[in-house]
Amino acid sequence: MSTPAAQQPSPQLFFQTINAHLRTEALKAGIELEVFTAIGEGNTTAADIAKRCQTSEKGMRVLCDYLTIMEMLTKKDNHYALTLDSSVFLDKRSPAYLGGATEFLCSSMLTDGAKRMTDAVRKGGTAMENDGTIGPDHPIWVKFARGMAPMMAMPAQLMANLVDPNADRKLKILDIAAGHGLYGINFAIRNQQAEVTGLDWTAVLEVAKENAEKAGVADRYKTIEGSAFDVDFGSGYDLVLLTNFLHHFDPPTGETLLRKAHAALANGGRAVTLEFVPNEDRVTPPDSAGFSMMMLTGTPSGDAYTFSELERMFANAGFSRSTIHPLPPSIQQVVISEK
Amino acid sequence: MSTPAAQQPSPQLFFQTINAHLRTEALKAGIELEVFTAIGEGNTTAADIAKRCQTSEKGMRVLCDYLTIMEMLTKKDNHYALTLDSSVFLDKRSPAYLGGATEFLCSSMLTDGAKRMTDAVRKGGTAMENDGTIGPDHPIWVKFARGMAPMMAMPAQLMANLVDPNADRKLKILDIAAGHGLYGINFAIRNQQAEVTGLDWTAVLEVAKENAEKAGVADRYKTIEGSAFDVDFGSGYDLVLLTNFLHHFDPPTGETLLRKAHAALANGGRAVTLEFVPNEDRVTPPDSAGFSMMMLTGTPSGDAYTFSELERMFANAGFSRSTIHPLPPSIQQVVISEK
Repeated sequence: MSTPAAQQPSPQLFFQTINAHLRTEALKAGIELEVFTAIGEGNTTAADIAKRCQTSEKGMRVLCDYLTIMEMLTKKDNHYALTLDSSVFLDKRSPAYLGGATEFLCSSMLTDGAKRMTDAVRKGGTAMENDGTIGPDHPIWVKFARGMAPMMAMPAQLMANLVDPNADRKLKILDIAAGHGLYGINFAIRNQQAEVTGLDWTAVLEVAKENAEKAGVADRYKTIEGSAFDVDFGSGYDLVLLTNFLHHFDPPTGETLLRKAHAALANGGRAVTLEFVPNEDRVTPPDSAGFSMMMLTGTPSGDAYTFSELERMFANAGFSRSTIHPLPPSIQQVVISEK
Repeated sequence: MSTPAAQQPSPQLFFQTINAHLRTEALKAGIELEVFTAIGEGNTTAADIAKRCQTSEKGMRVLCDYLTIMEMLTKKDNHYALTLDSSVFLDKRSPAYLGGATEFLCSSMLTDGAKRMTDAVRKGGTAMENDGTIGPDHPIWVKFARGMAPMMAMPAQLMANLVDPNADRKLKILDIAAGHGLYGINFAIRNQQAEVTGLDWTAVLEVAKENAEKAGVADRYKTIEGSAFDVDFGSGYDLVLLTNFLHHFDPPTGETLLRKAHAALANGGRAVTLEFVPNEDRVTPPDSAGFSMMMLTGTPSGDAYTFSELERMFANAGFSRSTIHPLPPSIQQVVISEK
């Protein structure tokens, strides 16, 4: 639905953009009605999919056509099929099913902030009360931990491979704002000598503990309950993981936390940060750069930080050197900062 | 923000789509805060635009970056600039300014229907009460008439050129569901012998009459107030215009109206239909094909009809032949049907 640069002015991009909310609704409807699962099961015509999903045939035809336009389905001779992405991420029977992530990404907590974007631009931070999503013990993070885990499984595995390639030595790991716990857990799966301490709100850690149990690493998984800004981290860690955490805060607040992380690391220890890192122009690559808007509308002073900004924060907190590493096919990047 | 087909599965398209509503909000915020106008006036840095629009600098930087990612602005060395499209359609000082269209396109009447998409798919039509947008005298159509006129000025002119190229003979025109009136009015501007009768709800015709006045053709502009399904059309018309009207109804309802139009035409007269016409596959071109979703969520039984479907409706109503004509750069098409 993107438009090529035209020689003459066209209202096409305006029209597409003002109606972009329909794309969100169509994906939500497709997930809710189990359209992708129905097609995965072998229903390929609008009539058959409608029967399986208990909808009108016309409504299903319009929805499947719309999902085809959005490149989430293909259509040939009135038969619909899944794409590679939709078969992996949107068919309920797939282990990487992401449908649960809509519980988090479409929660009113996130969309209410987005609806008040004009006020957020005026103010320079979320227009929601109580600090938006970063208030203490906010229940959104349990939804996050449950819903986003399938989306995080792949980057969590990639990150452990990158940071601990040989998996042959003792590793004491602190996973700050652990959420679903998968980032720490993947180190423990890979390396029998890795011991992980997950830190998060009490209710969220229940999800992390369940996941550690499922992964068979519960005996090497400990927890610290509370706010990363308040609790005692302990000391002597080889790795401190900061996955999707720094973007919620302004740089001075981030630096406060990084100083605490620095103090908790053993000599030679490393902080491992997973983030949406826009290029210095702040408009590429589109998904990482665009993430700053989610932080503007959802948090009081968060942002998507460039590598030079992250580097400065870590340097100010006492780290000697930071390096950046892509994590393809994930759109996020890993910053490794040495004590 | 579209993603190329990848060899390995990626959640990128899922993430982009579930967050697509942010694009709608960002365009609305840009219009509401007059960001495009501010840049057109010569403010190019986030600081200067923020000052002009009375917002925080950070919020404006994030918004302008987001609008750049959406290709509605460009950015170079921290200076933002308008694109051709945004200078023509989004700068308040431009005669083709479309900001007012958001009043219609983002009205709760349209977005409430979209939010109930799952129910609309189940039912096969809008989940809103009172027949969605097609209830009698619905105030949405005044918003439509006022807000959408600038977007319609160009296709209205192109359509008059196409249908009445020589503009050298008497033309009696009936403009059904005239709205802003621009389609009929452009025939009257072009051809001094053209007389137009606009038909619509009373409140809507006030807008059409204002526009006829502004165009200097009020002396050749008459009106019929009421529902196109109920009122007497009169007779002897050379042209009956049906612009963006048939998509609100199912084919039998459309045919009822077309029979009435057929009867009102003089021998040799023509019905002139402007529509979003998807190809027979119903998934290309994307904007016309996607329009069917707006009809599913907003009307009881409307749709975007293919040319073969339109051709059949006109044939069933007694028309001898229909031909289809593109109207570039508009994404809509014109169907001319002969009595």
